[in-house]
Amino acid sequence: MKVYLSGEIHTDWRDQIIEGAKGLNVTFSAPVTDHAASDDCGVAIMGAEDQKFWHDHKGAKLNAIRTRNAIEAADVVVVRFGEKYKQWNAAFDAGYASALGKALIVMHGAEHQHALKEVDAAALAVTETPEQVVQILTYVLTGTLPG
Amino acid sequence: MKVYLSGEIHTDWRDQIIEGAKGLNVTFSAPVTDHAASDDCGVAIMGAEDQKFWHDHKGAKLNAIRTRNAIEAADVVVVRFGEKYKQWNAAFDAGYASALGKALIVMHGAEHQHALKEVDAAALAVTETPEQVVQILTYVLTGTLPG
Amino acid sequence: MKVYLSGEIHTDWRDQIIEGAKGLNVTFSAPVTDHAASDDCGVAIMGAEDQKFWHDHKGAKLNAIRTRNAIEAADVVVVRFGEKYKQWNAAFDAGYASALGKALIVMHGAEHQHALKEVDAAALAVTETPEQVVQILTYVLTGTLPG
Amino acid sequence: MKVYLSGEIHTDWRDQIIEGAKGLNVTFSAPVTDHAASDDCGVAIMGAEDQKFWHDHKGAKLNAIRTRNAIEAADVVVVRFGEKYKQWNAAFDAGYASALGKALIVMHGAEHQHALKEVDAAALAVTETPEQVVQILTYVLTGTLPG
Amino acid sequence: MKVYLSGEIHTDWRDQIIEGAKGLNVTFSAPVTDHAASDDCGVAIMGAEDQKFWHDHKGAKLNAIRTRNAIEAADVVVVRFGEKYKQWNAAFDAGYASALGKALIVMHGAEHQHALKEVDAAALAVTETPEQVVQILTYVLTGTLPG
Amino acid sequence: MKVYLSGEIHTDWRDQIIEGAKGLNVTFSAPVTDHAASDDCGVAIMGAEDQKFWHDHKGAKLNAIRTRNAIEAADVVVVRFGEKYKQWNAAFDAGYASALGKALIVMHGAEHQHALKEVDAAALAVTETPEQVVQILTYVLTGTLPG
Amino acid sequence: MKVYLSGEIHTDWRDQIIEGAKGLNVTFSAPVTDHAASDDCGVAIMGAEDQKFWHDHKGAKLNAIRTRNAIEAADVVVVRFGEKYKQWNAAFDAGYASALGKALIVMHGAEHQHALKEVDAAALAVTETPEQVVQILTYVLTGTLPG
Amino acid sequence: MKVYLSGEIHTDWRDQIIEGAKGLNVTFSAPVTDHAASDDCGVAIMGAEDQKFWHDHKGAKLNAIRTRNAIEAADVVVVRFGEKYKQWNAAFDAGYASALGKALIVMHGAEHQHALKEVDAAALAVTETPEQVVQILTYVLTGTLPG
Repeated sequence: MKVYLSGEIHTDWRDQIIEGAKGLNVTFSAPVTDHAASDDCGVAIMGAEDQKFWHDHKGAKLNAIRTRNAIEAADVVVVRFGEKYKQWNAAFDAGYASALGKALIVMHGAEHQHALKEVDAAALAVTETPEQVVQILTYVLTGTLPG
Repeated sequence: MKVYLSGEIHTDWRDQIIEGAKGLNVTFSAPVTDHAASDDCGVAIMGAEDQKFWHDHKGAKLNAIRTRNAIEAADVVVVRFGEKYKQWNAAFDAGYASALGKALIVMHGAEHQHALKEVDAAALAVTETPEQVVQILTYVLTGTLPG
Repeated sequence: MKVYLSGEIHTDWRDQIIEGAKGLNVTFSAPVTDHAASDDCGVAIMGAEDQKFWHDHKGAKLNAIRTRNAIEAADVVVVRFGEKYKQWNAAFDAGYASALGKALIVMHGAEHQHALKEVDAAALAVTETPEQVVQILTYVLTGTLPG
Repeated sequence: MKVYLSGEIHTDWRDQIIEGAKGLNVTFSAPVTDHAASDDCGVAIMGAEDQKFWHDHKGAKLNAIRTRNAIEAADVVVVRFGEKYKQWNAAFDAGYASALGKALIVMHGAEHQHALKEVDAAALAVTETPEQVVQILTYVLTGTLPG
Repeated sequence: MKVYLSGEIHTDWRDQIIEGAKGLNVTFSAPVTDHAASDDCGVAIMGAEDQKFWHDHKGAKLNAIRTRNAIEAADVVVVRFGEKYKQWNAAFDAGYASALGKALIVMHGAEHQHALKEVDAAALAVTETPEQVVQILTYVLTGTLPG
Repeated sequence: MKVYLSGEIHTDWRDQIIEGAKGLNVTFSAPVTDHAASDDCGVAIMGAEDQKFWHDHKGAKLNAIRTRNAIEAADVVVVRFGEKYKQWNAAFDAGYASALGKALIVMHGAEHQHALKEVDAAALAVTETPEQVVQILTYVLTGTLPG
Repeated sequence: MKVYLSGEIHTDWRDQIIEGAKGLNVTFSAPVTDHAASDDCGVAIMGAEDQKFWHDHKGAKLNAIRTRNAIEAADVVVVRFGEKYKQWNAAFDAGYASALGKALIVMHGAEHQHALKEVDAAALAVTETPEQVVQILTYVLTGTLPG
Repeated sequence: MKVYLSGEIHTDWRDQIIEGAKGLNVTFSAPVTDHAASDDCGVAIMGAEDQKFWHDHKGAKLNAIRTRNAIEAADVVVVRFGEKYKQWNAAFDAGYASALGKALIVMHGAEHQHALKEVDAAALAVTETPEQVVQILTYVLTGTLPG
């Protein structure tokens, strides 16, 4: 099973899931999570821009080569919303995955419940912790529940 | 041409576009923009819920009957991000429309440029004002530029 | 909006919905609800069969010309499960509509809740009465809630 | 060849097919067939619910992560209807598989022939026993008939 | 309902169906049935060819502009096999329509039953006469059986 | 029948086809053929750019709203290659239309035969003059050949 | 590269191609070519039928499990028309493959050129001998021409 | 990741990319780049033609078996426009890849910027050198930037 881990990049939630899922038949993919590299990749390779808009534009498109391929190849897309920032790219990925019919798992704290209701409504599972995602992957692949 | 107007519901930007596009061969659609109705529609019709999560869930799914049908039927999807709130449903719609190959027009102020770079990168036009959207629709349909 | 009314054919629920939705911009479609005609259409037109299996087979395929075209053309598929019979064709239609990405509305009594949990999980709305379906169509098309 | 075994979970028909197909180039998949785990998986991982509807809803969606991925990956979907229960999820799976253009094999006793006529009409083979399914898989993969 | 009438062009079966279906909400389409025009259209418009293969090739491709558009637009494809000739284009159309998921109605005499078994197996109805096709269209659209 | 007229914009070939096709049941669409407007539309509406690349980029994307919608809506795509310029956008449109399965008609002079062999190989008709395109549309829609 | 070998089953053309393509990175698939098994497979496994039509029907559907999966999995579909019989299933396969966008190679003698013009027009290569098919596969995979 | 290298065949840009990408998890594919073989393959295998048009036609279709399969299988399509020739097939491939939703990387010199603006607008990256393509593939697969 191929699982794409989208969204928040400032905590180690991806590592926790990958560590917890050891032994399961899962291949994980993710965006580039080095924030500086992700922001500057476009101009670093294809040349500097005077305007911030085009600086960002080049980078965002370059990152899309990786992210869209990974989402399209995925069986399951996990999208985590952290506590800070707008994280519109996470919601964009959730919409993109949903339109492709991917199984969507959302992860966020209770404080974002109302603001994320449309995203949650498109998901097959709404979670709060990486441990729950590991339990879901374990159950989906082996039929085993925690405890 | 069918145009879906997604996103922010607290200003009259939809009315400005619809008014400005009078005389063009365009049919507009939009989500329900009555905030209270949109939040409570699920429980109002299908019965109350104790938990806020399920209250919202029922409503969000009911609204999805309207919004997904409208996005799928649209030739162009305009998504506006306002100054306030998380607006994750707007970004979700942008991702959904993008995965379906819809022509995407994004509208937002300069202060959101960096946070919306992935959404902008998926768009065919990035605008700031309803007037620009009207000019785009006018040009796309008639070949006429402003001025 | 095109709405297909699938499922139980022994009560007048379709008429109630169609009557209640008068004035809305909806076109309804449905299977042939004349039970005898539906059962015998194949042999009546294409010749008798000795075996009940092929008698039914010819009829079921002939009815599929109507039902599959109608489901594929629909924006919304309403599936009602009545109190009696196996109604596997209703569940089949729900699965068929779901795989095509149609907006699914399910209608059934509380006694079938557990047995229909997979079907309900694929739906955007779960209702009990024709009146609720009318209220949903009214809200989806006009934004107006009951009361 | 990938074969998904959907439907009845109270007899050992899946084991019989898997055992009989040993030596063929087939990979089998199936839903979680531990009834209790399947019913309670949602609340066991994502938290208890007061309402039976949402208890079931969480579980049904979680199971859908597994079942929809498996059906979409399958070349052949076998759906068995047993002697008891409503088994609407089996019929739902048959409809889902059919809309995706999967090769559908149905298995059921003669007593359900009339009630399953629409499902049978969508199938490429209608069988009564696991042995017949093994014979079909053997023939399809090797061209060899029984006897 | 859009119905494409494919196959044999030497008898008036299309006229019989169109005449019989008067009053039904059906739009019929068909290939060019003027045999000479159909054979020579390519060279008549785009210039003569020395080789019969290319003469035919130009014509066949030109006719495909009409036939493929009509099949893709159709809800129902009727394919008639007459008593003479190879009629491979009819079987090609049947396969093309089948892969697109169109409702397929086949018409042929009993003498071709065995040779057409794969085509018949892909059809939702197998008929022998134009009258039967009219009865099918009448039933599918109105629910009314003959007699 | 919907026909998109792509490619060369310096002669009146579109007008000749539209004039010649009067009386046929055809709706024509085309890109904006005002060269200056087409080049400058992006900056005229969304603000000036220092770099020629981004000036062109904004305009090309804006034009794509019109052209992609029109190609996707078309039944037939006619692509004309004139005597001058690189005309890569014409070849791009031909590839785009071809991948979508559109019926492709190519128009060009004999001098470009070898260079356009891959494009011609994807077409259902290769022509040299607007008159031939009119004759093709006439034949496809009415079955009538010239003369 | 996956190549499906459809059509005539009375000569050893498949063996010639498979033998000639040794050393190339190709996987071949084909229908069951044991004529008797292919005709009787349905009743042999699922029970006898009184009517020849249903005898054939059961068999044709069972064979379709193999053939449709193989065509859908193929990159290239080779269809051979022999000198005898109607071979409508070959033309059906060609149409089916064509609608799915498969690369189609047709093989037949000159005597069938006119009757197969629509099938040839849908093909990327028209050949007469197994040796030519081997040369095509060799060229397509290695860039090497014969001689 | 599967990368198709389309376009100009007179310099060693493909070799530079393949060499530079050693160590990355990439599989490259490309058209036949032996110009003479590519031009004459059709007649070499399927027989000579008097007319240059059909000589080219046979070859172009034969090459399409390779190129379309490779583009459809690719995750990323790189299209290089060289300094000379019309290179319409490169632009055709870019359009074809774009309509299929492939990640498109374009490579060309500054002198072609304006003429390629529509192609560039459909790309996720616009480059000038093979080294930049290698850097992009390295970043996309490993997250590592040059320097």
